[in-house]
Amino acid sequence: MDIKEFFEQSAGKWFSQRTGHHPAFKQAESGQSNITIEILAADAPEVVQLCQQYHIEPRLAVCGARVTWDGTMEWYEDKGKRSGSTVLVPVPNPDKANEGQLLRKMADAQKAPVTGRYVIGNDDALTMITEYETMYSEERLWFASPNFRLRTTILKHSGGFSMASLYSEIRMGVSQPPKKAEDAAAKA
Amino acid sequence: MDIKEFFEQSAGKWFSQRTGHHPAFKQAESGQSNITIEILAADAPEVVQLCQQYHIEPRLAVCGARVTWDGTMEWYEDKGKRSGSTVLVPVPNPDKANEGQLLRKMADAQKAPVTGRYVIGNDDALTMITEYETMYSEERLWFASPNFRLRTTILKHSGGFSMASLYSEIRMGVSQPPKKAEDAAAKA
Repeated sequence: MDIKEFFEQSAGKWFSQRTGHHPAFKQAESGQSNITIEILAADAPEVVQLCQQYHIEPRLAVCGARVTWDGTMEWYEDKGKRSGSTVLVPVPNPDKANEGQLLRKMADAQKAPVTGRYVIGNDDALTMITEYETMYSEERLWFASPNFRLRTTILKHSGGFSMASLYSEIRMGVSQPPKKAEDAAAKA
Repeated sequence: MDIKEFFEQSAGKWFSQRTGHHPAFKQAESGQSNITIEILAADAPEVVQLCQQYHIEPRLAVCGARVTWDGTMEWYEDKGKRSGSTVLVPVPNPDKANEGQLLRKMADAQKAPVTGRYVIGNDDALTMITEYETMYSEERLWFASPNFRLRTTILKHSGGFSMASLYSEIRMGVSQPPKKAEDAAAKA
């Protein structure tokens, strides 16, 4: 599986159940969310714009994904918000197809963009790594079956504080092509 | 990292926090446990005995681990028990050092032994797979840092029912060599 295939397999609506562990405090927190993932073509305006923001040649991007969530879930820099949206754009390394850069639309337009990286392992799992000034984030995603996706995240703060989360995500429906007018007419 | 190194790095006492997700029911359950992992030499009686039970040449085993747990955690076929113990013995493939068979001491001596298999990925994560008659179990373990181990399990039942769990495990202490008598005397 390459990154484009992984994104395509992720497209759709998901119900996501989350638990976060704070090992140092022996505490856990939980949440749930509805997530919609839409695939964007490599030449979609949002993909081109994000590449330009990162000073990357837009033709190197293979696709993009718009991720929208709504729920009681904490998420990246949007902690506490009940809903949000971002755009992810993978840019494979020219010489190593299974890894590359990962561009992410920042919630705060004033913030300097942070470049993440991704690797697809020999077990078809996608690992996305982002290093911030004081934080290291590692997110691993894999499919237990086509409609059951798992995700773990590890956050390590420079202060030594760590957190691990599990997201289990089940597909709530696949986008259907729009019904043809004649079909609707025949049924009327 | 090879399987022996992975086992050695796992040796010690761990506090394990667990959450299980039942995606079909949108439900979660949690538990915690103290786990002790002791490494056994390749020629330890328990390792040799387990090999013989599986009709495997004992000299092929590289080591063993005795895993003891005590807590409110569900575990394998011992579901509901508050404490238990098992022995794991990895037997690497002669031609592929990073994978092999995984022998496990069954809680119920009457049960036919089930052979699992393991793979160490290029990301140093250990995946252990066991297929039972009506169940598929996949367990993935990796170190976020030397004293912070993560574990995910997926259970798939033939009836279509699935479950995913996250265990985050922090090291509670490393076995110290016994204090020398003269040290104790000097302090007295």
